[in-house]
Amino acid sequence: MTDIKIPKRGFSKDEFEKRVSNAQKIMNKHQLDAIFVTTPHNIRYFSGFNSQFWESPTRPWFLVIPTEGDPIAVIPEIGGPGMKLTWIDDIRTWQAPNPRDDGISLLRSTLEKITKRFGKIGAELGREMSLRMPILDFLKLRETIQSEIVNGSPAIWEMRIVKTEAEIDHINYICKIASEAYEALPNQLSIGDTEREAVCKLRIDIAKRGADSTPFMAGISGPSGVSQIVCGPQDRILEIGDILFIDTGSTYDGYFCDFDRNYAFGKVSSEVSRVHEALWLATEAGIKAAVPGAKTDDVWKAMNSIIENAGAIGNNVGRLGHGLGLQLTEPPSHRLGDNTIIAENMVLTIEPGMEYAPGKMIVHEENIAITKDGSKLLTKRAPRELPIIS
Amino acid sequence: MTDIKIPKRGFSKDEFEKRVSNAQKIMNKHQLDAIFVTTPHNIRYFSGFNSQFWESPTRPWFLVIPTEGDPIAVIPEIGGPGMKLTWIDDIRTWQAPNPRDDGISLLRSTLEKITKRFGKIGAELGREMSLRMPILDFLKLRETIQSEIVNGSPAIWEMRIVKTEAEIDHINYICKIASEAYEALPNQLSIGDTEREAVCKLRIDIAKRGADSTPFMAGISGPSGVSQIVCGPQDRILEIGDILFIDTGSTYDGYFCDFDRNYAFGKVSSEVSRVHEALWLATEAGIKAAVPGAKTDDVWKAMNSIIENAGAIGNNVGRLGHGLGLQLTEPPSHRLGDNTIIAENMVLTIEPGMEYAPGKMIVHEENIAITKDGSKLLTKRAPRELPIIS
Repeated sequence: MTDIKIPKRGFSKDEFEKRVSNAQKIMNKHQLDAIFVTTPHNIRYFSGFNSQFWESPTRPWFLVIPTEGDPIAVIPEIGGPGMKLTWIDDIRTWQAPNPRDDGISLLRSTLEKITKRFGKIGAELGREMSLRMPILDFLKLRETIQSEIVNGSPAIWEMRIVKTEAEIDHINYICKIASEAYEALPNQLSIGDTEREAVCKLRIDIAKRGADSTPFMAGISGPSGVSQIVCGPQDRILEIGDILFIDTGSTYDGYFCDFDRNYAFGKVSSEVSRVHEALWLATEAGIKAAVPGAKTDDVWKAMNSIIENAGAIGNNVGRLGHGLGLQLTEPPSHRLGDNTIIAENMVLTIEPGMEYAPGKMIVHEENIAITKDGSKLLTKRAPRELPIIS
Repeated sequence: MTDIKIPKRGFSKDEFEKRVSNAQKIMNKHQLDAIFVTTPHNIRYFSGFNSQFWESPTRPWFLVIPTEGDPIAVIPEIGGPGMKLTWIDDIRTWQAPNPRDDGISLLRSTLEKITKRFGKIGAELGREMSLRMPILDFLKLRETIQSEIVNGSPAIWEMRIVKTEAEIDHINYICKIASEAYEALPNQLSIGDTEREAVCKLRIDIAKRGADSTPFMAGISGPSGVSQIVCGPQDRILEIGDILFIDTGSTYDGYFCDFDRNYAFGKVSSEVSRVHEALWLATEAGIKAAVPGAKTDDVWKAMNSIIENAGAIGNNVGRLGHGLGLQLTEPPSHRLGDNTIIAENMVLTIEPGMEYAPGKMIVHEENIAITKDGSKLLTKRAPRELPIIS
């Protein structure tokens, strides 16, 4: 992975035009005259607007993508100059915050002027999405607008689920940064460190290697495995016999990696070795199963049979991997019943995990991009043998 | 500020009981039988649940706070072991993701069993809040539940707007970390650095000094001022005559600082000096005006008269400061017409900014906690003279 170049930041106007044109085809199929989006990732996907200002919940922002013509930004005045840095030409602003009318009448009049063929406008109402605006304002808009506002989430996920080449280059680069940092971490760790110290070292190294941010970095440890994978790090001291699990979603130019690594302290029991090997093989099977035309169910089954044979007593994650891109997790899910057909240029995690004894979990994870007839590993494959920290 | 100790992470059970008891008084006043919350900060405020897993939009989470009794967590199975680390005893889980019923029937049955005195349940429907769940699921819940679901946002902000001593200690500590990093930054900067390099140095230093994360760090530069304050850093090279504006929301144990600093490169024009001095004085006036019993309007007026006299031609921010805490920005707003009465133990930013020539903005910012009869500076006051980088 040494040959991966730093991708140019941002995307060409041509790329955004292709995204919009693809979105318009999908909107036509879903019989939508337009969609309007309110959340950081959907606004960024279509506009390129890049800001951390989303941390402030005070002002709503809107981007309207009509079936015909270019997107229209309907945003607070404070965002005007920043939006002008993007390819979006039609930028309409209001003075915010304004408790009496925070952009709703401006959004309504913008939507009313969209050509009506279907009488329906899609919004972020469905699964794996939420609406970043006061719901009372949304309900008021829905009541007073002529068009019907319907669930646009399935259409929006259809637009985003297959990545462009430039998006894959971005994800590959952040995967490379995190892979190299994970690989270098054992030299920085010692028995007696706390979880928090270990995670802080990795966080700093990932920043030094060129990541923009690390919104997600869970670090959890326990004797021979961990009891959960979503809360941590804490001040627990790393001792002989422990496994330290670190999972990071770091970003480069808005795009996430999402994969973990495990480190053993002092020694590895034969039971941990056996489980680690089973998960390593389950990952191999998952990668092999994820090919164009296969279903997410097939990927799940390929991993699950190995995990079950290895004696899994449970897995509270509810799936064995998922999509990723502008967000840490995106559809689809490798889950029995998900049934998404895998297609070229999807980017997916392969994430087998198992609880092999009560309170003892081990989870592996890699990121792949689907190619024409198989897949390409975006992460540097985890070592087959657990690294042992002394 | 050298005497500020590292606050103990997390909060005592006693603190959470006081938060809930205060919330219950406010719910009674608002005639709510319960509130249910879905967003990271509201769930953390009442439960102490600390996770970065919110980056994944896949699964909704719920916390129910009834007017009588302890909070009830209604969460995906993956979150069960993590929630057990908190003071919450009543934890109800479902196997997620589940497209057919992602917790809605479990939430409904939980809410149905709450004692009904008012027949109303508050949800995050109003200003400066959104609902972190699919809106279609919310609408289904609203239609099928016996109680009326009403706007709980005003009640929830009333619960959070006045901080506890332990919360103020947390905010003070992250303000200290960022203040010291800002102060040390000039030694690390040179003419010829890019915005991105400058911001990366500060980000790493803040992490080394003990911050947990830096969700917000805008870095923008321009000759004698900046054209906007929400998008950046970029690869722009810092040149003689530039002002570099950096604004960070970094966190310690969940609590934010939110303040900026400005650095001059090579030289400072007399015009920039004049504007900088006016903003420094406006900050002084804002700090002095923010006392218990005063209104946010008074704080705004105290700053605005100085800014106007100094020749402001505009300010697209829409306000001159705001609350902060678990979020980068929280109510109230220092804004004409906001009219919030300032009370002891509110934590506020004092943020005068002005565009003094087209495309040339300078913004100052400090963080304060309101005391019994005045305020206490949580940040180390910005230097009256702009630091000049050579």
